[in-house]
Amino acid sequence: MPAETPAETLSETLAALRPADPAVLADARAHQDRLTKPRGSLGALEEVAVRLAGAAGVSPPPVPAPAALAIFAADHGVHARGVSPWPQEVTVQMVSNFLAGGAVANAFAAQAGASVTVVDVGVAADLPDHPRLVKRKIGYGTADLSRGPAMTGEEVVRALEAGIGVARDLVASGARCLITGDMGIANTTASAALIAAFTGRDPEEVTGLGTGITAEAHARKIAVVRESLQVNGLLEEPATPGRPDGGPVRDRRAEASRVLAAVGGFEHAAIAGFVLGGAAARVPVILDGVIAGAAALAAAALHPAVVDHCVAGHRSAEPGHAAALGHLGLRPLVDLELRLGEGTGGLLAHPLVCAAVRVMHEVATFDSAGVTEKPM
Amino acid sequence: MPAETPAETLSETLAALRPADPAVLADARAHQDRLTKPRGSLGALEEVAVRLAGAAGVSPPPVPAPAALAIFAADHGVHARGVSPWPQEVTVQMVSNFLAGGAVANAFAAQAGASVTVVDVGVAADLPDHPRLVKRKIGYGTADLSRGPAMTGEEVVRALEAGIGVARDLVASGARCLITGDMGIANTTASAALIAAFTGRDPEEVTGLGTGITAEAHARKIAVVRESLQVNGLLEEPATPGRPDGGPVRDRRAEASRVLAAVGGFEHAAIAGFVLGGAAARVPVILDGVIAGAAALAAAALHPAVVDHCVAGHRSAEPGHAAALGHLGLRPLVDLELRLGEGTGGLLAHPLVCAAVRVMHEVATFDSAGVTEKPM
Repeated sequence: MPAETPAETLSETLAALRPADPAVLADARAHQDRLTKPRGSLGALEEVAVRLAGAAGVSPPPVPAPAALAIFAADHGVHARGVSPWPQEVTVQMVSNFLAGGAVANAFAAQAGASVTVVDVGVAADLPDHPRLVKRKIGYGTADLSRGPAMTGEEVVRALEAGIGVARDLVASGARCLITGDMGIANTTASAALIAAFTGRDPEEVTGLGTGITAEAHARKIAVVRESLQVNGLLEEPATPGRPDGGPVRDRRAEASRVLAAVGGFEHAAIAGFVLGGAAARVPVILDGVIAGAAALAAAALHPAVVDHCVAGHRSAEPGHAAALGHLGLRPLVDLELRLGEGTGGLLAHPLVCAAVRVMHEVATFDSAGVTEKPM
Repeated sequence: MPAETPAETLSETLAALRPADPAVLADARAHQDRLTKPRGSLGALEEVAVRLAGAAGVSPPPVPAPAALAIFAADHGVHARGVSPWPQEVTVQMVSNFLAGGAVANAFAAQAGASVTVVDVGVAADLPDHPRLVKRKIGYGTADLSRGPAMTGEEVVRALEAGIGVARDLVASGARCLITGDMGIANTTASAALIAAFTGRDPEEVTGLGTGITAEAHARKIAVVRESLQVNGLLEEPATPGRPDGGPVRDRRAEASRVLAAVGGFEHAAIAGFVLGGAAARVPVILDGVIAGAAALAAAALHPAVVDHCVAGHRSAEPGHAAALGHLGLRPLVDLELRLGEGTGGLLAHPLVCAAVRVMHEVATFDSAGVTEKPM
């Protein structure tokens, strides 16, 4: 498949995806060390720029701007279990708020110069048309993951391909950085279940307070997550044959899809596709919070090289997010106890990522600037 | 003095400085809670926006843009003690690099949309004229602080007023946010001595590796810092009468100036003035790293209310920086192990601060957006 024809299906996308180029990584590191700054003095930002070079296959890598935020919205059958204090209608109300430009994600996107696209992959209501709303509804909310699989295997593929399509279209319209966003009341419950399943952590370790619940509601939420893993046969040890991080590729992919179907949400599958689509197009993807972290675990199970193309925008207050990032080997750039979602943490990280890359384009070398290098 | 006449001298500036307005702080907190997001879900950014409202005396506070970076450059007599592996000439070479636009601070400023001004307050060489270079040279480097006072009391006042003047001029030319920057080989040594003196910490706790030294050089640097405190009579317990954090105002101010003169650098005094000048004009100041932290301790000793107008841009890898921020009660926004200086950490924080403030201007309330509030 020529690079000019963007991947559209899941299998084409997985086939197109390339890991970071080791020679380019080495070039980028050597270039960093020639710049007029003490070696390593830009801390974690040096590695961000180097990783983006490896992912893009060229050093310096393209400046990742403009950015495009895609907010994947969906509802969750597990909401009926009382895992969130917010009524389910808030999902559709917030979609209207995003489209009207009144949410925090809009303010942060304006600051970052990023476009905002809302994608309905499973809101439990019909939405009016809007120029910034992409309609790719798979269903009116998932089934209750604590009673059985949340999605069918076919729904998972459709949601993944919806995300791939959004990534493809945004890149085609000029985006040079993709940022994940999400909206879906109860989606931290599904995220906790996905993270427990993919990392092997206990539900208690990875289930947090979401956007804010009481201690009693938190205990109930943990119990629901545990139940969802039990009901769906996902409570065995991690890394057993056929688990996402073990076994042959075909089994690994099948198992990743099975986990997504069992305890994921439409937006988790779509975000996994969005991340895979960006990576296949060699456009960096900034992951937002815990929902993106859970989705990225699924994407990485489908194709491990996808992680080379991801930047962890931030670390949210949700405990499962740190577990997911640790499993992916990603270091978050912003760490300010945000717990909002919508893509807000990813948007905050965007100027940091741009700054890291601009250094490689714009900063003089010791030789060119006539600055004496430290004698060591 | 009417608000239209900007403060020019140190005493006018200190007289003009006002603490945060408690009524505005309360208004700003109440406004945050009406916005379409779960309460507290923007973590530390909510407090940043609230603090800026209190400092500005209006809620929402003005969006802090455009920003202006001022890089205060100076040399240090203590360089002769071998505390840095870099030759002193690098200070002037890097000044040229800033003016040519080739340093990391330039790339980060371009990303933040900030102007860059370089201020010579004490470089040990004569510099050619340049439109972005402000010449306020107090001397050709300080005296060696490990042998006696680095500056005279009169030099300290001149350096403070140089910083005040730069703040005044940048605000007059439209800056709505000031960012501190610094350049001066050996200035982490003076910073460690200032931080030890103002916080009462042991030199070993607050003396770091600067831009990179060996363990042996680190031990020598700690010894030099300890010597400088001893020679200048600054090794007694903190908070004794006449220390910066105790005693009557006149004594506190005199003592703050004495500490600055004893172990500071021209750029530390100038940055302290710059911070005071921004605060007096009610324009927020984003502090960069350990040099700014040390300077802010001096500014806070001169007038405690200055802290209400400061945002800690980042936490550097220098151990003394965390000690300084802890003493000031400031939480850093970026924490990525940077150890470059120049204002780079402050510049990275600028879009985060703008995003925090834009939320208060641009985000809808639950009422206005028709979003259901959580029933609690």
